[in-house]
Amino acid sequence: MDYTKYVSQDIKSSLKHDPPGAWMPSVPAGCVRLSSGFPDASLVPVDELQQASTRLLREERDLPLHYVGSPKIDQLQTWLIARMKQRHIHIKQEELLVTSGACQAIDLIARILMDEETCVVVESPTYMEALEIFRNYTDRILTTPVDENGLNTVELEKMLAQRMLENKPLPKVLYTIPTFQNPTGTTLSNERRTHLLKLASVYDFLIMEDDAYGELYFNEPVPTLKSLDQEGRVLYIGSLSKVIAPGMRIGWVAADKVWIQTLFRFKKDLDHPFSQSVMATYLETVNWPNHLNKLQGAYQSKCKVLTDALATYMPKTVSWTKPDGGYFVWLTIQGADTSKLLDQATRAGVSYIPGKYFFLEKEKGMEYLRLSFSAAGEEEIVEGVKRLAGVIGG
Amino acid sequence: MDYTKYVSQDIKSSLKHDPPGAWMPSVPAGCVRLSSGFPDASLVPVDELQQASTRLLREERDLPLHYVGSPKIDQLQTWLIARMKQRHIHIKQEELLVTSGACQAIDLIARILMDEETCVVVESPTYMEALEIFRNYTDRILTTPVDENGLNTVELEKMLAQRMLENKPLPKVLYTIPTFQNPTGTTLSNERRTHLLKLASVYDFLIMEDDAYGELYFNEPVPTLKSLDQEGRVLYIGSLSKVIAPGMRIGWVAADKVWIQTLFRFKKDLDHPFSQSVMATYLETVNWPNHLNKLQGAYQSKCKVLTDALATYMPKTVSWTKPDGGYFVWLTIQGADTSKLLDQATRAGVSYIPGKYFFLEKEKGMEYLRLSFSAAGEEEIVEGVKRLAGVIGG
Repeated sequence: MDYTKYVSQDIKSSLKHDPPGAWMPSVPAGCVRLSSGFPDASLVPVDELQQASTRLLREERDLPLHYVGSPKIDQLQTWLIARMKQRHIHIKQEELLVTSGACQAIDLIARILMDEETCVVVESPTYMEALEIFRNYTDRILTTPVDENGLNTVELEKMLAQRMLENKPLPKVLYTIPTFQNPTGTTLSNERRTHLLKLASVYDFLIMEDDAYGELYFNEPVPTLKSLDQEGRVLYIGSLSKVIAPGMRIGWVAADKVWIQTLFRFKKDLDHPFSQSVMATYLETVNWPNHLNKLQGAYQSKCKVLTDALATYMPKTVSWTKPDGGYFVWLTIQGADTSKLLDQATRAGVSYIPGKYFFLEKEKGMEYLRLSFSAAGEEEIVEGVKRLAGVIGG
Repeated sequence: MDYTKYVSQDIKSSLKHDPPGAWMPSVPAGCVRLSSGFPDASLVPVDELQQASTRLLREERDLPLHYVGSPKIDQLQTWLIARMKQRHIHIKQEELLVTSGACQAIDLIARILMDEETCVVVESPTYMEALEIFRNYTDRILTTPVDENGLNTVELEKMLAQRMLENKPLPKVLYTIPTFQNPTGTTLSNERRTHLLKLASVYDFLIMEDDAYGELYFNEPVPTLKSLDQEGRVLYIGSLSKVIAPGMRIGWVAADKVWIQTLFRFKKDLDHPFSQSVMATYLETVNWPNHLNKLQGAYQSKCKVLTDALATYMPKTVSWTKPDGGYFVWLTIQGADTSKLLDQATRAGVSYIPGKYFFLEKEKGMEYLRLSFSAAGEEEIVEGVKRLAGVIGG
């Protein structure tokens, strides 16, 4: 049966690309996992979630097991709104949509904004899942480089001006992780934040701000783009995956009411009453500032262990970013092909993600790789760096 | 800010329609809920799911709280494959995709098959959520009437032949709930099942078989379309919502590998490790035939209570379907406008869903309404029917 004749015109171009997750390295047992962007196992509140689940079902019985019914769904929304306030984002309930993680939020926004004519700008490098999502909608993906101060807005402005001059289509939306970026760990400077919002206004585009790591700062919080946005151009994406547990699949969008209403039309998995209600029950008992402090301290310490080990063991051909928060450090290895190197690395007992998967043009990422300090323990991190340094040579 | 200039061309036509859930009647407290398509509270395994959740997190700790990791995800798939065998559907793991309920399954299939040029056939009346989903992709929705033997395949054939003769676009896909249909409760006869598959082959269309109610038979099981399909034309949609608990959001697609791979590209909420793992843990302890027997007996009894009460209290202007399974009975009230009647009914203390919401052309459904016997208790059902009969008059 020739199945291609049945598929929608809209998806035909996306079928050209690699299937999702093709980038995921298979990690042999015994490897130090510096590839995994998971939270540290010891920081996932397993017992608290277990108690929350028990308490919820004892108190509410079948309510959270129906399509609707548990008051905890509202309670979760109220909690998220309060949390947004701590990020200096002031929203009402109709400006919030709870999603199945940040990924669904990105996909829903793409669904309502992007068709095959749509130009979108992404950071180079960027989050590979976002790239995979956008490729499902359009081939018109433009890139702007990221440096140690995040997205280079001067380069962005040059590109926009050039495209305008040449009468080329201008982007309708830009996707960014401005704070503790995945994969580079870098943060957009305050000056560039202002510049980016100004460019959005002048060139009339929207901004998808992915703030999955924003609360995991080591020293001080960074203002969100959304909190600086005067024109309603920012669609903010939040997530509980990095600060509580990804397996609960809870993310959200904070944006103007008209966007939330439009996104809601296309959110066809309905709500997730059980997992959202368990989460709301857990959150009743959590002292959030203390919880965040604990995470921030732990990840700061692990980041220092990683960068200290890099300084000790890596040859001079290797340089890396110094993040102020988040999960990731980005390595540059002069002259390397990190895709080829991966096989040796996993045989030596350490995993990472090769740089090419974070670039639109895969030939660009050969000298880079992403290390995550979130999942592995401190001693493992040092051991992993030693093994990686041995493979890179000197 | 004029937001319409940013939205995708692909979604502009869907914005004309009512927002999702606009049909949902608000049900005042004290009403007998004959509107709700929920499982009976006493049949939702609350304690068992609570124990499963506790056991899972004690045994596996953080594994089911990460993106991947718990072996229970595979175990759920294995269980679903075994269950498919009981429906005479023989699939391998690569022919299965677990989704967030049947709704996400319907949406994903629509996503890969439908663009604005696509013709789709639905039953008239049909499941309103499916209608809402298809309207997000295309305005070319055709209908075929349902009678006491389900979708009228003779009418379908007439329409197809006529369209072919007139050189009109032919449907690429047909959506059906062949067994204990929502909203009518009717079941497609075996003869029509064969006829429908033959039409699919001759006129070259695919079939989405929504089998959410298929196991809730009162007397004997009905063969699925998928089990009769020789050409790989049927994409089967299953759900645990009606037989365990909708709040867990677990559904699936069983179809040829190429379809599953294509659907997977667009499933951007990732998996739901926590709720899928809790479900898998619960299923380890369940004697499924016993569980189904219990449900079948309970719903058969409630259905009889409802139809007996209808026979006792309804005037002669009212007739109804006699389902052999599922959740629903479909009423025809000669000369009524069931939308207008709803206000009186809820004031009298009973709720239902007016017929018009299940029709593409809303003027068609005025004389109909859907009653559900699933959620209310037996005494409540009788009381609800009395109240409704009082409102209808005689």
